[in-house]
This record gives sequence, structure tokens and C-alpha cells, in this order.
Amino acid sequence: MSTDPRLFIGQDLAAGQAVALPKEDTHYLVNVMRRAAGDTVRLFNGRDGEWRAQIVETGRKAAILEPLEQTRPQAGVPDLWLLFAPVKRQKTDLMVEKATELGVARLCPVSTARTQSERVRIDRFRTITKEAAEQTERLDLPEIDELERLDRVLDGWDPARRLIYCDEAGDEAGEPWGGARGRGQPMAAALAGLEAGPAAILIGPEGGFSDAERTRLRDHDFVTPVTLGPRILRAETAAMAALVLWQSVHGDWR
Amino acid sequence: MSTDPRLFIGQDLAAGQAVALPKEDTHYLVNVMRRAAGDTVRLFNGRDGEWRAQIVETGRKAAILEPLEQTRPQAGVPDLWLLFAPVKRQKTDLMVEKATELGVARLCPVSTARTQSERVRIDRFRTITKEAAEQTERLDLPEIDELERLDRVLDGWDPARRLIYCDEAGDEAGEPWGGARGRGQPMAAALAGLEAGPAAILIGPEGGFSDAERTRLRDHDFVTPVTLGPRILRAETAAMAALVLWQSVHGDWR
Repeated sequence: MSTDPRLFIGQDLAAGQAVALPKEDTHYLVNVMRRAAGDTVRLFNGRDGEWRAQIVETGRKAAILEPLEQTRPQAGVPDLWLLFAPVKRQKTDLMVEKATELGVARLCPVSTARTQSERVRIDRFRTITKEAAEQTERLDLPEIDELERLDRVLDGWDPARRLIYCDEAGDEAGEPWGGARGRGQPMAAALAGLEAGPAAILIGPEGGFSDAERTRLRDHDFVTPVTLGPRILRAETAAMAALVLWQSVHGDWR
Repeated sequence: MSTDPRLFIGQDLAAGQAVALPKEDTHYLVNVMRRAAGDTVRLFNGRDGEWRAQIVETGRKAAILEPLEQTRPQAGVPDLWLLFAPVKRQKTDLMVEKATELGVARLCPVSTARTQSERVRIDRFRTITKEAAEQTERLDLPEIDELERLDRVLDGWDPARRLIYCDEAGDEAGEPWGGARGRGQPMAAALAGLEAGPAAILIGPEGGFSDAERTRLRDHDFVTPVTLGPRILRAETAAMAALVLWQSVHGDWR
């Protein structure tokens, strides 16, 4: 495929208003994609749509690009957030990448009683979301929040936003595959019963939520507990599955 | 969590009929999970349900386990296959792992006009499906086919099995985001119009299907073309999304 490379930049995009590409993007464009002056690329910044731009000049540290014409108007993604407890680095990275592809508007890392990692690399998340957005034809990047404690997030929650809570670890009695105690409806059925509107999906850590967290979650009217089938999904798989189902029922996959 | 380790084995499982664990599983159990004689594990073989078993003896090359009681009866997954064109190794591995978690019955690697890799490591796939099944509480492993050419697979297709074809590369005219030409219905809507029954999902290579392949696919009555939202998903993401939607509408997530 000879499609033009697609790059997210920070600057404004307007006809004839040249922009300088940062060093990393210049390296990618020149050394990886082998493009040179005269070639065209596609640029987006999350505000001005997608532009076809021409490479005017390339140096070792920067490239100068001139936007020629807007090829797509700006479009956003549905108002869907993903709240997730960071897991192992590779799995968290995968969750961030796939959530961007699947069209999440905001990524909200939360720490829970059993969260394995308290370290969140926001910069790393930004790199991953940028690359995923470039490859997936998105016109914006998801917002990324700083790590926050789940109880504080719940304290400040706007009840107009539905919080869909996936409890993949099953119940505490050791019968995750069939135990009905405390588990939610299948997610597709639960979504069919909800009105469209702002939503967030909450995925717990590998060890699941604590009893106290579950009790608190279920006490809120804005929380809808759901299940994702009879097998136990890993955290990153549960996140992807929940995003897919929401996009199909209430999002922009309809 | 102090859940018993869960292992897939090849042998029959019956009360009092001791089984020997292979070297790799013994290493995992003894050195990684730090279990010793007297501890219990969970065993499954795809035929006899899940059993609680006790470690009788551990050596450097094998462990002897004695099945004590069946804790779950055998249960399968819905009759859903995944046909996929192998992509880069890491992404293909991810697809195989996630398809196992999401409950696919059969994995069928197919080569297409634009398939990037003609090498398929069946042994590697088996290792991945075994580990995924162990972690996801599945009671069986998916079948794994040898690599076959897509046209031959279509030649021998049983028309009673619906083939759901995801064409994520969009159309050839360079308008993947909005071009209606030749693209299918949103998958959830397409599934709602189909009867339940045996199904397969077909995911193409990163470069998409060739025009000839598309024309051939659309000529078959057993093929349903579908789309997965307005963004362009990578092959492994498209596979996961399609499996999730099928499981929710026609599979065992209902």
C-alpha cells in the first residue's frame, strides 16, 4: 500500500501555514517511511481535521511541511471513558493502544485495593495513543488522566455519566464461572436497557475488586454491573470487549 | 489470590487414576507457582471436565498428580471459527491468545493474496492456546488447522456455516472512513438479521483483501460482509471485536 503516512502534530493546520515536524516524527518519516521533499503526508491535530501536506524540506532534526488542503473535517469519538486499574506494563500498554483504536474519549487510570502497579507512565501512554490514532484513522487523541484513587473518582462522579462496571474476577466464593451471586447482567442486555448518553467502563485489576469496593460500587445508582461471558477474561481483554459492545450499542459503530 | 493452579493435560481424568505431568508443566508448578506434594491443582483435558487433583510427588522432570474429584462437568464453546491471515508474529500470537479467551472453537490460518507471512507455527499456537485456556477457565482448547489457501477453504466450505467477513482495510478508492462502496453493514446489525448456527469470522491481512478475493467472497450466499465502526482497526483488534460481537449476539455471552 502506498498510502501517505499519517502523523499527529500539535500545531494548528491551515493552508499555506508551514509547520515543523519534531525530531521523532522526522526520523519516522525520513528513515522509516523513506519520504523526501516533494512527497505528501497526512496531518491531524485533533482540532482542524485531516490535511494533505507536502514535505518542503528535511533536515536531521526537523522537517518542514506545508499543508495543502483539508481532506477530512474534524470529527470526534463518542463520549466514552475507560477507567482501568494499571496491570503489568505490557498489558496496560495493550489496553491503552486498543482503547484508542476502539474509539475511547478519555483514559482514566485508577488505583484500587488490589492494583498491582502504582506507577503510571503518562508520557508513555501519550506515545502509544498517538501511534494508535495515526494508524487507526482517528482524528483526535484520547485525553489521559493522572492516576487517581477509585474512591476519590467515585466521590467526584457526575451521576449523569453511566459507569459500567465489569467484574471479571467473578465472585469471592470461588465460583466465577457459574456463581450468580452478585454478578451483573450480560453486558449487551444491560446496555440495551440503558439510555444512550455519556458513559464510562470500569475494569478492575487482575485480582478483582475488594468486597468493600464492590459494595460501594453497587450502592451507586449511576453504576451498572455487567458480565462478559462464562469465561474469565484478563483485564485487557475485558476492557476491549466492553468497549466493543458499548460502541456497537450506543457508540459510533451503529 | 490463592486459587489452585490450573493445567491442561492430555491424559484421561478419573478418580484415583494418577497422571504424570510433563516437564514444562512440572517446572511451572514447582518453580514458578512454588507448589509441592500435598498441594492441590485443577486439571482439565477437554473431555472429562475439571478435576481437583493432589500433588503426590514432584521430581525434576515430572510430577505425579492424583485426581480427587470432578469440580465441573465438561462444557464446550459455541461453534465459532476464526479464519485469519497470519500477520506479524506478535500480532498473530495476540490474536490466537485473545480468540482462545473469547471462546473460539477452531483457529484456521488462511493465506491470501496479500498475506505477509506464509509461516505458521502450529506448535507455538498450541502453547499459546493452552496457556490462555488455563487462565481463562475454559474447559477445552480450540482446534488449530494447518495453513490453507483462502480459495481452497472457500472451495470446500459447508454453506450451512455462515462466514462473516470483516473488511477492515476499507475500499480501494482510498476512502476507508466513509466510503460506502462495497462495505458491509455494521456487524451488530448484520448479526441481528442472521439465524443462530455455526459461524466463522474471516479477518484479512493488514493490506486487506485483493479485489479478486472480495469479488469472490461477495459471490457466495454463505458470506455476510460486515464493518466494525468508522475507524480502521488493526487485524488483531478486528478479530477480537468480531468475536466479542458474535459471542454477545449468538454465542454464550447472552
